[in-house]
Amino acid sequence: MAPSHQPTLRVRQLFDNESFTYTYLLIDAESCAAAIIDPVVEKYERDRRCIEELNIQLHYIMETHIHADHITGAAKLKEHFAAKIVAGKATEVDCADLLLNDGDTIELGSYKIKALATPGHTNGCMSYYVDGMAFTGDALFIRGTGRTDFQEGDAATLYESVTQKLFTLPDATLVYPAHDYNGYTISTIGEEKRYNPRLGKGKSKQEFITIMDQLNLEEPLKIDVAVPANMCCGYMRDRI
Amino acid sequence: MAPSHQPTLRVRQLFDNESFTYTYLLIDAESCAAAIIDPVVEKYERDRRCIEELNIQLHYIMETHIHADHITGAAKLKEHFAAKIVAGKATEVDCADLLLNDGDTIELGSYKIKALATPGHTNGCMSYYVDGMAFTGDALFIRGTGRTDFQEGDAATLYESVTQKLFTLPDATLVYPAHDYNGYTISTIGEEKRYNPRLGKGKSKQEFITIMDQLNLEEPLKIDVAVPANMCCGYMRDRI
Repeated sequence: MAPSHQPTLRVRQLFDNESFTYTYLLIDAESCAAAIIDPVVEKYERDRRCIEELNIQLHYIMETHIHADHITGAAKLKEHFAAKIVAGKATEVDCADLLLNDGDTIELGSYKIKALATPGHTNGCMSYYVDGMAFTGDALFIRGTGRTDFQEGDAATLYESVTQKLFTLPDATLVYPAHDYNGYTISTIGEEKRYNPRLGKGKSKQEFITIMDQLNLEEPLKIDVAVPANMCCGYMRDRI
Repeated sequence: MAPSHQPTLRVRQLFDNESFTYTYLLIDAESCAAAIIDPVVEKYERDRRCIEELNIQLHYIMETHIHADHITGAAKLKEHFAAKIVAGKATEVDCADLLLNDGDTIELGSYKIKALATPGHTNGCMSYYVDGMAFTGDALFIRGTGRTDFQEGDAATLYESVTQKLFTLPDATLVYPAHDYNGYTISTIGEEKRYNPRLGKGKSKQEFITIMDQLNLEEPLKIDVAVPANMCCGYMRDRI
């Protein structure tokens, strides 16, 4: 996915302290083409200013999935920057400009971002891979995983996505998750294979399913407003 | 400060969501020598595990200053890893193993970390520079600065430290602050010179002093326990 010349892809990681969401700006420093992954609507002003101050051209607004814990900033960013909204085809969101299948790529400057279908947290979960970096959404967290107890969550499916798809990337691949609750910002595939307590260390699918079954997590506070709003790329948020 | 061969210095950024503190692991991937900057005592277990899982050798525990908002994890990390505690000489902390003056360097593998005295938030504030990265403590934040209204805070001094020392580093220098309250993780010197609303954009010293005088911030919650504990590198914390 990387060009043969000196790498020019830059990442700017941004955090929403309320929902513990990481938003990413991906920037090809050569062409100034940029994509944003998983923006949060309450952080729209910060993200807009950041894009303008960095003097980059926002081409894509990419969602890893239909979030249940926050409303996306996609609609507001699209209105301002005229960028394309990108999501996995299995999300079935009508408002996206591009719906990707597993293995599809989109171009960002001289880079190709590859969509990797990683269902399990939801059916439409996509990870995005480019230049040695995997943006793993709610499939793989640092020393954890997304939950599988609501929406279309399915632990067996998530186990397959992580162990058969993400864990087949090179060990040095950087892992950038959609959330972190412990103050980690980055990991690698190699680290997660060795140390992830839920499905690393050679844990079996049945062990993973048992762990996920016993989590007993509370329902996300915003699920009732976030999911319908995100099915509309955040356009409906003022009416909710 | 960088060796002539392929760069091998890695940064692992860690966040404390209670005090909004960034802790950094600096790792020379070739020798596995590592330093930690501004650890937080409540995050000791996370930091210890991270160091052990990354299979690195902790040589230094570096403080940018005497913190007022959290207690350092230095003492506990030193007890476990037998690393040296490093601080600025003007902190006057007896418990440190190395007290650095402006311009002093310490070696981390084939790298040299250079201490840059950047007083103003406190008298003993040090920034640390290595391989195109500046760890700016509470001197320079992303689109902000440390406060100057308690301990030995002095806005005029901080203005000199940032504009005459940090802003003379190359524009591409990465800025890694000790705190962020807005979800930013990284900036550059060039960005801060252009966009920092307090002392970028050519703001005068008097303008900066006026801005700082009008902040009217609340006193840090932990100042009465954190400062005396940090004067002892965190050793006293169980007795407070």
